[in-house]
Amino acid sequence: MVVASVDNLADERSKAQFDVGAMKIVWAGSKHVFDVTDRMARIVASDPEFRKDNRTTLGRKELFKNTLRKMAHVVKRANELRLTEEEASKLRFFVDEPGYLDLHWGMFVPAIKGQGTEEQQEKWLPLASRMEIIGCYAQTELGHGSNVQGLETTATFDPKTDEFIIHSPSLTSYKWWPGGLGKVSTHVVVYARLVSGGQEHGIYGFIVQLRSLDDHTPLPGIIIGDIGTKFGSGAYNTMDNGFVCFNRVRIPRNHMLMRFCQVTREGNVCLSDVPKQMVYGTMVYVRQTIVSDASWALSRAVCIAVRYSAIRRQFGSQDRGIETQVLDYKTQQSRLFPLLASAYAFRFVGEWLKWLYADVTERLQANDFSTLPEAHACTAGLKSLTTSVTADAIEECRKLCGGHGYLCSSGLPELFAVYVPACTYEGDNVVLLLQVARFLVKTVSRLAAGKKPVGTTTYMGNAEHLMQCKSSASSPEDWLKPSVVLEAFEARAFRLAVACARDISKFSTPEAGFAELSIDLVEAAIAHCEVIVVSRFIEKVQQDIPGDGVKEQLQILCFIYALHLIHKHSGEFLSTGCITPEQATLANEQLRTLYGQVRPNAVSLVDAFNYTDHYLGSALGRYDGNVYATLYAQALRDPLNDTVVPDGYEEFIRPVLKQTMRLSRL
Amino acid sequence: MVVASVDNLADERSKAQFDVGAMKIVWAGSKHVFDVTDRMARIVASDPEFRKDNRTTLGRKELFKNTLRKMAHVVKRANELRLTEEEASKLRFFVDEPGYLDLHWGMFVPAIKGQGTEEQQEKWLPLASRMEIIGCYAQTELGHGSNVQGLETTATFDPKTDEFIIHSPSLTSYKWWPGGLGKVSTHVVVYARLVSGGQEHGIYGFIVQLRSLDDHTPLPGIIIGDIGTKFGSGAYNTMDNGFVCFNRVRIPRNHMLMRFCQVTREGNVCLSDVPKQMVYGTMVYVRQTIVSDASWALSRAVCIAVRYSAIRRQFGSQDRGIETQVLDYKTQQSRLFPLLASAYAFRFVGEWLKWLYADVTERLQANDFSTLPEAHACTAGLKSLTTSVTADAIEECRKLCGGHGYLCSSGLPELFAVYVPACTYEGDNVVLLLQVARFLVKTVSRLAAGKKPVGTTTYMGNAEHLMQCKSSASSPEDWLKPSVVLEAFEARAFRLAVACARDISKFSTPEAGFAELSIDLVEAAIAHCEVIVVSRFIEKVQQDIPGDGVKEQLQILCFIYALHLIHKHSGEFLSTGCITPEQATLANEQLRTLYGQVRPNAVSLVDAFNYTDHYLGSALGRYDGNVYATLYAQALRDPLNDTVVPDGYEEFIRPVLKQTMRLSRL
Ligand SMILES: Cc1cc2nc3c(=O)[nH]c(=O)nc-3n(C[C@H](O)[C@H](O)[C@H](O)COP(=O)(O)OP(=O)(O)OC[C@H]3O[C@@H](n4cnc5c(N)ncnc54)[C@H](O)[C@@H]3O)c2cc1C
Ligand SMILES: Cc1cc2nc3c(=O)[nH]c(=O)nc-3n(C[C@H](O)[C@H](O)[C@H](O)COP(=O)(O)OP(=O)(O)OC[C@H]3O[C@@H](n4cnc5c(N)ncnc54)[C@H](O)[C@@H]3O)c2cc1C
Ligand SMILES: [Ca+2]
Repeated sequence: MVVASVDNLADERSKAQFDVGAMKIVWAGSKHVFDVTDRMARIVASDPEFRKDNRTTLGRKELFKNTLRKMAHVVKRANELRLTEEEASKLRFFVDEPGYLDLHWGMFVPAIKGQGTEEQQEKWLPLASRMEIIGCYAQTELGHGSNVQGLETTATFDPKTDEFIIHSPSLTSYKWWPGGLGKVSTHVVVYARLVSGGQEHGIYGFIVQLRSLDDHTPLPGIIIGDIGTKFGSGAYNTMDNGFVCFNRVRIPRNHMLMRFCQVTREGNVCLSDVPKQMVYGTMVYVRQTIVSDASWALSRAVCIAVRYSAIRRQFGSQDRGIETQVLDYKTQQSRLFPLLASAYAFRFVGEWLKWLYADVTERLQANDFSTLPEAHACTAGLKSLTTSVTADAIEECRKLCGGHGYLCSSGLPELFAVYVPACTYEGDNVVLLLQVARFLVKTVSRLAAGKKPVGTTTYMGNAEHLMQCKSSASSPEDWLKPSVVLEAFEARAFRLAVACARDISKFSTPEAGFAELSIDLVEAAIAHCEVIVVSRFIEKVQQDIPGDGVKEQLQILCFIYALHLIHKHSGEFLSTGCITPEQATLANEQLRTLYGQVRPNAVSLVDAFNYTDHYLGSALGRYDGNVYATLYAQALRDPLNDTVVPDGYEEFIRPVLKQTMRLSRL
Repeated sequence: MVVASVDNLADERSKAQFDVGAMKIVWAGSKHVFDVTDRMARIVASDPEFRKDNRTTLGRKELFKNTLRKMAHVVKRANELRLTEEEASKLRFFVDEPGYLDLHWGMFVPAIKGQGTEEQQEKWLPLASRMEIIGCYAQTELGHGSNVQGLETTATFDPKTDEFIIHSPSLTSYKWWPGGLGKVSTHVVVYARLVSGGQEHGIYGFIVQLRSLDDHTPLPGIIIGDIGTKFGSGAYNTMDNGFVCFNRVRIPRNHMLMRFCQVTREGNVCLSDVPKQMVYGTMVYVRQTIVSDASWALSRAVCIAVRYSAIRRQFGSQDRGIETQVLDYKTQQSRLFPLLASAYAFRFVGEWLKWLYADVTERLQANDFSTLPEAHACTAGLKSLTTSVTADAIEECRKLCGGHGYLCSSGLPELFAVYVPACTYEGDNVVLLLQVARFLVKTVSRLAAGKKPVGTTTYMGNAEHLMQCKSSASSPEDWLKPSVVLEAFEARAFRLAVACARDISKFSTPEAGFAELSIDLVEAAIAHCEVIVVSRFIEKVQQDIPGDGVKEQLQILCFIYALHLIHKHSGEFLSTGCITPEQATLANEQLRTLYGQVRPNAVSLVDAFNYTDHYLGSALGRYDGNVYATLYAQALRDPLNDTVVPDGYEEFIRPVLKQTMRLSRL
């Protein structure tokens, strides 16, 4: 018997006004990336070892062991299939479970590559890539996070034995948070205050062995463990984020990562001739991956919410006729479509950051450090902006799914729980925005001195115009002109930055002004970051883009992205005089029109992400729209449904019903 | 040996400029409520059976059984201590764990009280209050939620046997979500389409027995179970939200709740002489408790974040001196203090809703239904506003705690997970705002006809002034004048509502206009709700309030609440011409000053909530500020730390390290 496959979304799909296949390539970035991604996603989806629908019912221990099993299976499959590094990393990505491999490949190996000498790289990298050792990255301490200069752990050079003594002088100095540290890693890069000859020399990384390679027991002087459960049920609870206390643990001198600073046999400390700025290259790289991850997480949530909103019906008909798809409600659209547009916006700015990374790397090799401060500010800002928006957006998508969004089988609760720490790690988002603001104020104050702004701040060179311009928008359609939109964003950002710089100068010291005005500064920083995202998106849609109707759809999304921000921040656009209240109203009108235009394409625009049902992990987001039967099937699998009468009935329910409470010995 | 008790927050406490004891009474509402609350909180906190710190490590089954144990213990203690209803409900509150008792007491019993005839109440209420039966409330279906009129379950009268046949005609008609249904309840109030004589008569409630009182097995024709895991690790996973399918289940005719509508022996359906509006009384009551719960949840999160921000130090000193408390950063203050102010604002509007409920009840008894539509809109709006703000605020408090906020031992992840469904149940927040908007538009359109607005819309009677007024604020201090603040809020809300009404009239039908403009309508509804909260807060601080400095602190919080909203919605205040950009700047300046004034009182203002460490359930929010030792102690209790080498090492880690992956049979 041939069963016709369900496609409850077929109607929606038939409405698409563009070539979905072509859009998939645009989303992936290239045909090559699409192919690799698609292949790896399917390998994971079809392998029962990577099943993930039972994660949220397990206790901590079973959950963790389950992840160990998956990680070993990843290693095995990567070997068997002889995957390239690119492929293996996609494979891990689609396994979609935080685990020690992330830290080993994502932090430990890069730390050695970035901060180790060539000799050190030759020694450690082969061990790490064969996974004869498993490593993690320990910077944060119980009492110290954002302020790396405040770390307490010491690495004191002992010239008698040619060793460093790694020591945790207090409870607050315990390393705390590193993923993979608690139970798995055999090695760690520890950041500590270098002390030699009784003097402090700043914070550096040291490779320390944690556990015996024979039986995995902690080495002498090391107290180590897991820091306990985290947000969500599965989420990061699959990971052994850990703590460690070092009680005068000795390591050979050459375990200090010495690319930038060397300690000699005698204990002399000397900076190497590798410029310290080289380290920024890695930072740009890491943040680029975070921005890229933001677009994945956001698009995943949006995909679920869009498909479900096309299936879900509420109200809107008399006499028990068919109800209205909630996707047709303007309120639903106004909450959801800007997030769909943001997913595309972040994807494109993420791709652009890859170019920036290549550019920075090239310049570093040529000893050109001129663009570094700007690249640093830009990536810090984009990390902050995209992760904050994505975290909020996932939760909004969950709410958009009504009650069912609250079920783990919707996939959204765990997606939120696993995503939100991105707002905190690799730099707290507010701390990062303050760094951006500092750079902006500096840029503004140097304009007077005739210094030309570079990179993403180039627009500030147009100071006079940006201070005076008034938007020319006089019809809703005018808000579809790239120049009109861009001018408004640039003028707002620039005026906010200038106002900050001006107000700071009224304080006795710049530091005092900066501290007092930090709220305004953060707003100015966000405005600048939005200029970057909007202008990259506009650039993108001005290019040639192959595929029927693809460019048109991206243009619609681009203007939804820009105009929803104008609405969201209308107070800033108005108070800086960049637009008038009437122009704000026109922008809103245009936005509403755009929602109507994206509506028939919405399901196909999320199909273009090319996510497997395994990766989505959502009954609500299934490709075939078979929502209700799937919710029911998932419910039946809950352990509580193993028995009809629950464990605990005799002891705890029956006595309540039978009024034997006072007699029973509970 | 006498151990001096730790108080790492003593310094902060010594800075308070008001009488904390007096503030505790203000927060509680009265001395009596304070005493009851305090006593119940302590009883729970000192009883090891109510320990909750291990919740997040358990698998679903153990977690659920653990809750059954606690619920039985609640019943036992309430009996032993001969608690009043008020006391027992506080006791349950502080046990702080969703369980079937919530639905039994909070939905099942009220449904019978509200919709049952006197005879029915006499029959069922004694059984329910002795808990010889356990009940729940089943309205929502798999395919139907917000739109109650769309429910599919049928209750068909069979005159032959004098019975109703309860039936689920499709998968989407399965009841889905009711708490306590999945595994515990013996009875349920089911909402179904009444069918008699082949005709439909609308949705009514029916009492159906679900399980045998002998052995707890489901009765014939009933398929029942749990709907699976939900957001968070503990959170609502302690509750058996369930599904049920009825296969032509027969119940006696008198199991239909017949207060409003009666079905006779012959199957005739007649509305009773009890006006249907009576049902709104219950609704006002339930929503009042939701607003009150919002202030508890919000204050709890704020208490944790404020205390931790006073302990946590980052940056701000050279040479390893003592770092700056993060509570001193303006960005931290601008994120946190408005939430502190909101907690107080919601507390007071919640108290006021109690008065409103009493007022409505009194009027209903006198057959005066004139204030009902307004009371309905007001409570719908406040439910939506306070729950949305609280949900976002808990997550913001979590982020304000940096990395450690992500640990379950911070208490914040589970608080978020358990709180967020409040945005969805008892009316989806957006659907509710659209109801408010509908009422506002009606109110505005009736102004022209000379109809005087009542209750919280009274201000709209001042139409001419509100349309024309321009704010008189010309200094930061002017923003401390209640009349200046109130006028701005009223003018903004009124102008937005008027604009909506005007724009709707441009469409071919009001319905078309309403649908198309629903985004603006939602904004107008929020603006109106904010008028209510701001004016209730202003009223409160204009009363006599005993206690040194108490009134002054509340005034500061009141203006922080109002001015942060002006900042947040400055686009609306500006575009409606209620204030100028210069006045917005003055408001911001005043706001910054107020942050400085609240800073030394912040810790004492959260002490005034009088929360026990048990209730807070947070290492970061401990009263004594002993944060780091507590985080460490909690970590050591994680099951993963039971062994040094984790379960799974031999099977899954060693093979990776020893390169035996390809040989091993994983
Ligand atoms: C899931 C997860 C995984 C992690 N993995 C690792 C890992 O593998 N290795 C590792 O070393 N670390 C890891 N970390 C730690 C992480 O890097 C830190 O949590 C992060 O750097 C934030 O620092 P913090 O926790 O000290 O926050 P804090 O700096 O204490 O932040 C608390 C509050 O203070 C505010 N604040 C701080 N400084 C300022 C300022 N100057 N001005 C204004 N406001 C300020 C912040 O905005 C925030 O609101 C991980 C964390 C998480 C949550
Ligand atoms: C923890 C929890 C406990 C619960 N307990 C119970 C219980 O004990 N008993 C019980 O009967 N039920 C219970 N429920 C169910 C709850 O009452 C429903 O989930 C709630 O009514 C929301 O309805 P929905 O899920 O159908 O959302 P939907 O209405 O499907 O919402 C989906 C989306 O559509 C939008 N939408 C819907 N209608 C409109 C419209 N007209 N205009 C614009 N947008 C619209 C919403 O805003 C939302 O974004 C519970 C739910 C939860 C999460
Ligand atoms: Ca769990």
